[in-house]
Amino acid sequence: MSTTHAERSPDALDAGIALVRPALRAAVRDYLSHETELVAGYHHGWSDEQGRPTEEWSGKLVRPSLALLSARSTGADPADGVAAAVAVELVHNFSLLHDDIMDNDSARRGRATAWTLFGVPRAILAGDALLAAATGVLLDSGKPGAGTAANSLATATRRMISGQAADVEFERRDDVTLDECLRMAGDKTGALLSCACSIGAELLGAEAELLHRLARFGEHIGVAFQLVDDLLGIWGEPERTGKQVLADIRVRKKSLPLVFALNEGGSDELSALYHGSEPLDEKQVHRVAELVERAGGREWTHEELARRVAGARECLEHDGLPRSVREELLEMAAFLTDRRF
Amino acid sequence: MSTTHAERSPDALDAGIALVRPALRAAVRDYLSHETELVAGYHHGWSDEQGRPTEEWSGKLVRPSLALLSARSTGADPADGVAAAVAVELVHNFSLLHDDIMDNDSARRGRATAWTLFGVPRAILAGDALLAAATGVLLDSGKPGAGTAANSLATATRRMISGQAADVEFERRDDVTLDECLRMAGDKTGALLSCACSIGAELLGAEAELLHRLARFGEHIGVAFQLVDDLLGIWGEPERTGKQVLADIRVRKKSLPLVFALNEGGSDELSALYHGSEPLDEKQVHRVAELVERAGGREWTHEELARRVAGARECLEHDGLPRSVREELLEMAAFLTDRRF
Repeated sequence: MSTTHAERSPDALDAGIALVRPALRAAVRDYLSHETELVAGYHHGWSDEQGRPTEEWSGKLVRPSLALLSARSTGADPADGVAAAVAVELVHNFSLLHDDIMDNDSARRGRATAWTLFGVPRAILAGDALLAAATGVLLDSGKPGAGTAANSLATATRRMISGQAADVEFERRDDVTLDECLRMAGDKTGALLSCACSIGAELLGAEAELLHRLARFGEHIGVAFQLVDDLLGIWGEPERTGKQVLADIRVRKKSLPLVFALNEGGSDELSALYHGSEPLDEKQVHRVAELVERAGGREWTHEELARRVAGARECLEHDGLPRSVREELLEMAAFLTDRRF
Repeated sequence: MSTTHAERSPDALDAGIALVRPALRAAVRDYLSHETELVAGYHHGWSDEQGRPTEEWSGKLVRPSLALLSARSTGADPADGVAAAVAVELVHNFSLLHDDIMDNDSARRGRATAWTLFGVPRAILAGDALLAAATGVLLDSGKPGAGTAANSLATATRRMISGQAADVEFERRDDVTLDECLRMAGDKTGALLSCACSIGAELLGAEAELLHRLARFGEHIGVAFQLVDDLLGIWGEPERTGKQVLADIRVRKKSLPLVFALNEGGSDELSALYHGSEPLDEKQVHRVAELVERAGGREWTHEELARRVAGARECLEHDGLPRSVREELLEMAAFLTDRRF
């Protein structure tokens, strides 16, 4: 998840960084062995490949910040939610380490990916170790909802894996439906954000209605984030987003605007271009974008995004939620979905 | 873990198979998505690569059988330990799926490894999904010790990962000590067997002294199993073990007899041969085996094996342990360590 954002960060992110950074480092030190800690430390950005400290910590800690807000939603001190925040970030980084191998990606956050430096075996192991550490962090926390929080995190992890597996499978298929694609986005991106938004409260034993609302808020935000990402992958301004324009079309990604256009009102020309196997030339790439727009793919994605953001806002209309927490959650939602395009 | 054993299987294994096979299949079906289930089903041996049922289930279910004995040690019905048995087997298979990628192994249990058929990404994901499923199976069990059992399994998983990481690291080092090597064996092989032997009782809320003894029993058995494996890797009879004679020396594996010999009373000749980078010829392979034996590596390994087996037996001298369970645990210990060599 990468954003290029000129504006001020939400307060929640600053608070998240102050509380979570040291706890996250401590967890990696305490729960990982020397060999996997080296790889994980590099991946998190606090050390170089020899284990020497760096100043370039690059993660924004979006999920931990949401987890702390979630803890605060019960009226608790954010510090009481740190174990939840750390656990969800460990799972996020487990998935990044493994996804970079699967996607054959050589760069992340402006640095070489871990597997390119340490090799695939050590990057797999470091990811595995982070996932097992997350369970330990929660169950060792001594908080009343530790068991149910660990179970929710495991469930979210399975959904995330299932979404990634579906994404891998979609690359080989020409008949992906919009429903499948939305479900994949919900699993791949929504599940862990949903868990981040509820796990802090769950760890502290919050009541079911609040948990349900926080989880649904996070799910909406996750899918909204994916919709934004998909819009930027075609129509983004490179100087704002860091992404090449039309990047997703060049690799024939089955992103949501494309899958909408291919299924609803798309043309034979679009199908032929997108399902072919020869590389698309520059003219064809622009033609695909034009055909997607003509089929309503761009408009539908904007509308779906608006529906998700409205849905997220609605989830927070709950008397049990402190006003300051609601405002900060909405600020986080705007931060994640209001990237200019 | 592979054994070639002409004798009758322990009763515990037969019981394990009857109770655990259907539960394990149900867990994979219920906790994995379609895409990862296909890979996991192939890996477990109950389907082929198209997902068609096979009759060739190949796992012996050693760890689940130990987990059921562990449940019975509290006086409970073995069925009460099925969630523990399934969880520990899921973690074992998670590690096999990932280890096969890391070790670049193309065959397991007489079939192609999953990654060679489905590709590295899908094999990584299936492993990840099995690990996350294990946590879910335990925490959904509704048993009194679900949380502590899930925590113990996560701790064992981290130790196992740490052992595998150390093993990978040892390949690049010439100064591995005997202590490091024993710790690696304890982590890589002992930790999960230790957990298997205690997790059934832990799930059912057994008292600490019994859990401690069962865990130590399993740890001893795990290291003993590794010592046997290392002896067979040099001096095994291929027709009994299925392993090529002197196999570990050919690949310069840092197995326990070798590390003993290199550190204690080894010769410059042995160090030069073993730390070289040119492939060893047949004469040199036999010379290494001779030098290891002369340095006491074979004798020490047999002695350490005897100490571990005795230690394991001692752990079961406890009034709280039903006699039938003690006998079946000892039968399992013999099954795992008494392979002829």
